[in-house]
Amino acid sequence: MTAPSLNTEPINLAHVQSRIDQALHSFLDAKTRTAEDRSLPLVVPTALRDFLDAGGKRLRPLLCVLGWYAASGHGDEEAVIQTAAALEMFHAFALIHDDIMDNSATRRGQPTVHRVLANRLGHDQLGTSAAILIGDMALAWSDELLHSSGHPAHRLAGLRRVIDVMRQEVIYGQYLDLMTPLGPITDHEAALQVIRFKTAKYTVDRPLHCGATLADAEVGLHAALSRYALPLGEAFQLRDDILGVYGRPDDTGKPVLDDLREGKHTVLLALAAQRADTAQRKLLDSLVGTEDLDHNGAARIRTVLDATGARATVEDMIATRYARALAALDAVPYPPPAAAALRHIAARAVERTS
Amino acid sequence: MTAPSLNTEPINLAHVQSRIDQALHSFLDAKTRTAEDRSLPLVVPTALRDFLDAGGKRLRPLLCVLGWYAASGHGDEEAVIQTAAALEMFHAFALIHDDIMDNSATRRGQPTVHRVLANRLGHDQLGTSAAILIGDMALAWSDELLHSSGHPAHRLAGLRRVIDVMRQEVIYGQYLDLMTPLGPITDHEAALQVIRFKTAKYTVDRPLHCGATLADAEVGLHAALSRYALPLGEAFQLRDDILGVYGRPDDTGKPVLDDLREGKHTVLLALAAQRADTAQRKLLDSLVGTEDLDHNGAARIRTVLDATGARATVEDMIATRYARALAALDAVPYPPPAAAALRHIAARAVERTS
Repeated sequence: MTAPSLNTEPINLAHVQSRIDQALHSFLDAKTRTAEDRSLPLVVPTALRDFLDAGGKRLRPLLCVLGWYAASGHGDEEAVIQTAAALEMFHAFALIHDDIMDNSATRRGQPTVHRVLANRLGHDQLGTSAAILIGDMALAWSDELLHSSGHPAHRLAGLRRVIDVMRQEVIYGQYLDLMTPLGPITDHEAALQVIRFKTAKYTVDRPLHCGATLADAEVGLHAALSRYALPLGEAFQLRDDILGVYGRPDDTGKPVLDDLREGKHTVLLALAAQRADTAQRKLLDSLVGTEDLDHNGAARIRTVLDATGARATVEDMIATRYARALAALDAVPYPPPAAAALRHIAARAVERTS
Repeated sequence: MTAPSLNTEPINLAHVQSRIDQALHSFLDAKTRTAEDRSLPLVVPTALRDFLDAGGKRLRPLLCVLGWYAASGHGDEEAVIQTAAALEMFHAFALIHDDIMDNSATRRGQPTVHRVLANRLGHDQLGTSAAILIGDMALAWSDELLHSSGHPAHRLAGLRRVIDVMRQEVIYGQYLDLMTPLGPITDHEAALQVIRFKTAKYTVDRPLHCGATLADAEVGLHAALSRYALPLGEAFQLRDDILGVYGRPDDTGKPVLDDLREGKHTVLLALAAQRADTAQRKLLDSLVGTEDLDHNGAARIRTVLDATGARATVEDMIATRYARALAALDAVPYPPPAAAALRHIAARAVERTS
C-alpha cells in the first residue's frame, strides 16, 4: 500500500490499528504453525493470541506509528507497523507478569493468563509457572518482531537504545510500585512519581521516541514530543485511577473493586487521605486495601473521595495536563495529519470511559 | 591488551573467565551507581551481582569466546568478552525464573533469589514477585550488554538472530520440562529429547554459534561446531543428572535430595524404571517425587539405580558422546589453541564433580 501524503491526507487510526493487529496475528500464526510442525507446546502462541485478541487500546503501538509520522517519516511504513506490534507484544509480557504479581483474576473482561492456565492444568502453581514462561516468551518474541522488521542496521541500533531504556524504566517502576507499603498513603507526590516512571514514559513518551527514531529525528524533536507525552501520560494514568474507582466494569473490563481492595496507591486516594477528617480517615483506613471489600464499602469510600474534593482535584489535574499536552503540540510545526491524530489520541486517553 | 597469536599461544581460560566476570561487575557497578543517583531500588543490581558472584561454571560465556577463536576471530576481543557476559546475564534470568517455578530453596550453595527476597521482605509472595522482576531485569540487561558491545551493525544483526532462536528454544524447553507428568517415566528417549532442546543447544551449541557469528563464520563452520556441541551438551546434562543423585552437596552446591524429591525426569531414572523388577519399581514409585524423601530413602533409590545398571548405562552414554565430541573436533582444522581449549572444556564438562 502507499503511505498517505504526509501534509494533507488524514491518518486513519482505525486502519493503522488493524494493520498492527494483522502484524501480531501473522507473527503468532507463523509461531503456531512452527509449534505444530515441531511438536512444541501450542498453548504458548495461542494463549498470547487470545490475550491480545481480548482487547487493549493499542495506545503504545499507535503512538509509535504517530511518532514516525510526527517526525516526517516516510518510506517503509510496514517496518514501522511491525515495530509498533513489537511494543504491543512487549506490553503483553509486562501485563502477564503484573497480573501474576498483583494476583489479579481478570483483565480485559477475561480471566488472566495465569488463571486460564491454572484452570486448564488444574493446578494453581503450575498455572503461574506456565504464565511466567508465556510472559518470558512474549518478551523474547517482541524482540524477534523488532529484529525482523527490516530496518536498516543504523536505525535498528538507535531503536534498541530507546527500547533498552524503556524496559529498564518500566521494570524499575513496577518494582517501586510493588514495594510501596500497604494501606492508604497521604503523599500524592510519591504517587505521581510512580506514575511518571511507570506510565507516562512507558505508555506515551518512549513509544513516540521509537517512531521518531525510525524517522531519524533530531534530539530536539524527541524533547518536543516529550513535552506532549509526559503530561498526557500523567493525565492518562489519573483517568485510569478514577475509572478504577468510578468506572463501570462493563466498560473497563475489570472489577471495579480491584484497585480499592488492593489499596493501589493512587493520587486520588492519597489526596483523600491527606484531606480526610478523623472520621473519614478512619473509614479509609478500615476499608481501603481489605480483600473482602464489598460494593457497599466501595460506595462509602467514594463518598469520602467526593466529600474531600479529591475526585474534583484529580479531574482538575487531568484537565491541566491535557491542556499542557495540547499546547505542546501547537508549539511545533508537525505535519498537520500527525498533529491531528496526536490531538485525537490525547482526547481519547483523557476522556475515555474504559 | 593484545590478543594471543591464534595459531600458537594457548588460550588462558582462567584469564578469559576473569575478564568475563570483570565485564559483568563493571556493568552492574554502573547500574548500582545509577540506582543510587536516581533513588531506584538498589536491590535489583546488587541481588544480581550476589547471584553471579555465588559461582557458576561460566560455561556458556567461555564457549562463546571459544566459538570466536575457533572461527579464527581476530580484532576487538573486548566486544566478544562483553557478548559472553551478556550470555551469562541471560543465564541468570533463566535460573532465577527456573528456581521460582521449581520452588527451589538453594542454588550454588546459597538461598535462591526469591528466598533471599522473601526473607528480607518477610513475605513469601512479595519475595517471589520481586524475583520475577529481578529476572526480567537480568533479561533486559543482557540485551543492553549485547547492544553496547561495540560490534559493527551487520554482526550485531547476525548475533541477534542466534540469540532470538536460542531464547525461544530455552523457553520452550523449560515449558516442556514443566509439563512432563509427575512420577517416574520409563521413556528415556523423551528425557533425551528435553535434554537436547533445553541443555545441549542452549548450553553448548548456541554459545559457540554466537562467537562464530562474531567472527563472520560460514554456515559450514556452524554445522561443524554443532557436531562437537550437541553430543557434548548431552554428556554434560547426563553428568548433571548423575551428580544430582550421587554428587556431594559440598561440591555441587545443591542438596542431593532435590532432583529425587522433585522427581526430575532424567534418563538415569527412566532407564531404572524401565528395567526395574516389580519390587524395584514399587520402591521407585513410592519414593521418587515425594517431598519428604530422606537420606535413607535416597540411598534405597541409588541401590536400584546401581542394581538395574542404569547408572552404568548412563556412564557409557556419557563416554560415547564425549568421544563423539572429541572426534568432531579432530575432523576440522581449527586453530590449534582453540581446539585445545575446546578439548579442555569438554573434559571439564564431562568429568566434573560439581
